[in-house]
Amino acid sequence: MTVEWIAVDWGTTNLRAFAMAREGVVAQASSEDGMGRLDRDGFEPALLRLIGPWLPEGRVTEVIACGMVGSRQGWHEAPYRAVPCTPLDSGSLVTVPTRDTRIRVRLVPGLKQGSPADVMRGEETQIAGALALLPGFDGVVCLPGTHSKWAHLSAGEVVSFQTFMTGEMFALLSQASVLRHGMQGEGWDDAAFDAGVSDALARPERIGAKLFGIRAEGLIAGLAPTSARARLSGLLIGMELAAARPYWLGQAVVIVGSEGISASYARALKGLGVEARLVKGGDAVLAGLGVTRARVNA
Amino acid sequence: MTVEWIAVDWGTTNLRAFAMAREGVVAQASSEDGMGRLDRDGFEPALLRLIGPWLPEGRVTEVIACGMVGSRQGWHEAPYRAVPCTPLDSGSLVTVPTRDTRIRVRLVPGLKQGSPADVMRGEETQIAGALALLPGFDGVVCLPGTHSKWAHLSAGEVVSFQTFMTGEMFALLSQASVLRHGMQGEGWDDAAFDAGVSDALARPERIGAKLFGIRAEGLIAGLAPTSARARLSGLLIGMELAAARPYWLGQAVVIVGSEGISASYARALKGLGVEARLVKGGDAVLAGLGVTRARVNA
Repeated sequence: MTVEWIAVDWGTTNLRAFAMAREGVVAQASSEDGMGRLDRDGFEPALLRLIGPWLPEGRVTEVIACGMVGSRQGWHEAPYRAVPCTPLDSGSLVTVPTRDTRIRVRLVPGLKQGSPADVMRGEETQIAGALALLPGFDGVVCLPGTHSKWAHLSAGEVVSFQTFMTGEMFALLSQASVLRHGMQGEGWDDAAFDAGVSDALARPERIGAKLFGIRAEGLIAGLAPTSARARLSGLLIGMELAAARPYWLGQAVVIVGSEGISASYARALKGLGVEARLVKGGDAVLAGLGVTRARVNA
Repeated sequence: MTVEWIAVDWGTTNLRAFAMAREGVVAQASSEDGMGRLDRDGFEPALLRLIGPWLPEGRVTEVIACGMVGSRQGWHEAPYRAVPCTPLDSGSLVTVPTRDTRIRVRLVPGLKQGSPADVMRGEETQIAGALALLPGFDGVVCLPGTHSKWAHLSAGEVVSFQTFMTGEMFALLSQASVLRHGMQGEGWDDAAFDAGVSDALARPERIGAKLFGIRAEGLIAGLAPTSARARLSGLLIGMELAAARPYWLGQAVVIVGSEGISASYARALKGLGVEARLVKGGDAVLAGLGVTRARVNA
């Protein structure tokens, strides 16, 4: 196994590493050593626990990492770049001093926007990857997740972007609020999801009133937990789509994310007449880190 | 001390009891034995721990309790009454069997609404109390809190009502979401609160986009924690007011609640040209339980 370099996707809750050879990924490993549970001295050991077995002796292996690892609370700050700009700039990578001399670690900076104020870390790499996978794409990239992002791309640059707390709100409301009582279990209900999306889009100003209604219908009208959870998801995604209208209306849209949540967004957008293309989040990260690495060595 | 009866406000997180004599409250006690931490057999002992010292020997003392104690997960279910109806109906009180023969405990039922589905437990008593304190009042009662309620009253009846999860969303977002990083401390910023309210009311469909902006401004524009927390409060209350517009627009409004949160709602409503009257939540509960007790014995 000839590991040429190592790609790392290092977020708040997870650390994922990929051993890259000429032919692509030859090994991968992950752990729960996300930025959120490490202090500054913990990053290098956490990384070495994962990639140590891949490191050849006698030469320095390049490591390129994106995500929250580059935040102020991370391993080392990689200062945000300001949009409009390309999603990646090999000259802006920040090299982190390491004790282990077998690795050279570079962090990808995130992007910031002055007005409205916004930031991203990690998604810039997925956007670069999506551009690499869909050469010449002009339009909008939607990256659903804990903090969903919508980015407007033109001529290879991120022109503007907007973050929504949809995934985090879903987690908090479905697991920690009074709504949790009526939405245990797994299952799904497409009709309830669709109704939630339509409801939020038709009367977005009523969203505050719609949420408790889920609990009330559970109590007095026997709303099934499966329907309750799908409706909550629909309401929150619908609320996001209502605010993101300037992003998707009349635009070519690519959704970059994990399969389940991407399918939900695609379904909601289809109801609005938007046929989104899908790119898997993992593919986009790897493609983005690959582009970065190629440019560094160009 | 001649305790004539005992008024009890028994919610999800707190139990509050008041020893009532002819001249009013002669003793009070509270504990954290809310419904949420008791199983069915735990209610009577929790109550006796609090009111035991007040009970005279040789006669039965009446206890009238409102709140979540009467829910299906509570001590004993007091089935919801359907609006439109008066907030209280002495004939619908539910007597709970007790082992201790010194007390006779009656629970006040909550109210339900079929469409849009909604429920309340405890607030019906505060509404009845507000009506007792403001005789002949016709208009709207706003009860801010974990689950804020707006109720339209006409000729002494609750015609319709609507619940908003504003307080719970504020708690979750400010304490458990990514926003918590930028809003530690106490303090307040009226201007940031006002701006949040205006923002949410002017463009309610953008609320989903405004929330993460608080975090982003903290990161890249130095938004102060005090301003961040006040803005979050303003955005959420503004979102509630946007959805509750049919309740407050052109109506006489009474706010029933604790002083701090009532003042925030009054300030936001004043900006919309609505001069709300204020009634303290504790006063309203006691007045409501007092009316109930008087009717039972009429």
